[in-house]
Amino acid sequence: MSLPPWRSLITRALHKNRSLVYSRYLQLATVRENGFPANRTVVFRGFLEDTNQLKFITDIRSEKAEQIVKQPAAEICWYFPNTREQFRITGKLTLVTANSHHNLQPARIKMWQELSDAARLQFVWPDSGKARVTTPEAFTPPAPDTIQPVENFCLLLLEPTKVDHLELRGEPQNRWVYYYNENQEWLTEAINP
Amino acid sequence: MSLPPWRSLITRALHKNRSLVYSRYLQLATVRENGFPANRTVVFRGFLEDTNQLKFITDIRSEKAEQIVKQPAAEICWYFPNTREQFRITGKLTLVTANSHHNLQPARIKMWQELSDAARLQFVWPDSGKARVTTPEAFTPPAPDTIQPVENFCLLLLEPTKVDHLELRGEPQNRWVYYYNENQEWLTEAINP
Repeated sequence: MSLPPWRSLITRALHKNRSLVYSRYLQLATVRENGFPANRTVVFRGFLEDTNQLKFITDIRSEKAEQIVKQPAAEICWYFPNTREQFRITGKLTLVTANSHHNLQPARIKMWQELSDAARLQFVWPDSGKARVTTPEAFTPPAPDTIQPVENFCLLLLEPTKVDHLELRGEPQNRWVYYYNENQEWLTEAINP
Repeated sequence: MSLPPWRSLITRALHKNRSLVYSRYLQLATVRENGFPANRTVVFRGFLEDTNQLKFITDIRSEKAEQIVKQPAAEICWYFPNTREQFRITGKLTLVTANSHHNLQPARIKMWQELSDAARLQFVWPDSGKARVTTPEAFTPPAPDTIQPVENFCLLLLEPTKVDHLELRGEPQNRWVYYYNENQEWLTEAINP
């Protein structure tokens, strides 16, 4: 697979911002059942092998899992502080659950195995967003298996169809948009910032 | 006006993160006409006097101005790196244009006057998002008037109805949600992170 032109820009941004752990944090917008937007920070977990799909993780119990099943359209906004550049990536989400097609399970299982112990532990915490469980033990459960993911663990994939790249450093500023067209080619256009 | 409980949390977060200029940057999610989400970075410009409305600026020529007129529902996601906390603020946007009610014009004009010269200049640049204008002079136009805003300058206001506050630092983590109820009171609930 030849990489689309925006891939090297992401790689460069990650490299130049590597001193900031939160440069891997970005904001994922989805749409609620009532048609209103939702927005939250998620952690970029790399690209799915041999694809341009961005990897994230989530819990089947989360509101976003529910939203995505009903409306998979998404837009992430990813701001890199050191290089003062923003990527807006529009695309379609795929929620890979324990019940997803067996072709997708190896990627889900590998993702689970790559997580830190602290990240895995959150998947055996009480239901996120529900009234606070006040027994402290609820948040210090036995560590889950490190090889086999828990049922509620999901891999979340974003397949980009458009990438809008804005460089605030520039004279005056630079902005490009990358489109995936019906011939499965990525087109590039310079646009006004 | 007595301030809702989440106001002091925002003030504290801004103070503790003041070393980072980009702690005033946040991500604004809206919904496009096709029902798909949009998401971009905007700069927090303070609260509108005697209200809980967050101030931003935008250009009437921008896609978001168009989206907001059709669907004013929004959610911002605001991550503070130093204190490792996130605010998700759900609410309704009001776009204050040159043609908005005269009651809103003083706030729009004041906002314009408070902008830097560089920020004001962007409102006389060529149309954002259109094919790049390659004549460099297009981006170095004569500076606009500093007192009277240009026609396309808009003040953008977000009236919060829900604030979801997550502290990643905590044992294990802390999360609260603040709701504005039908009695016009702010209610607080501790929820699972």
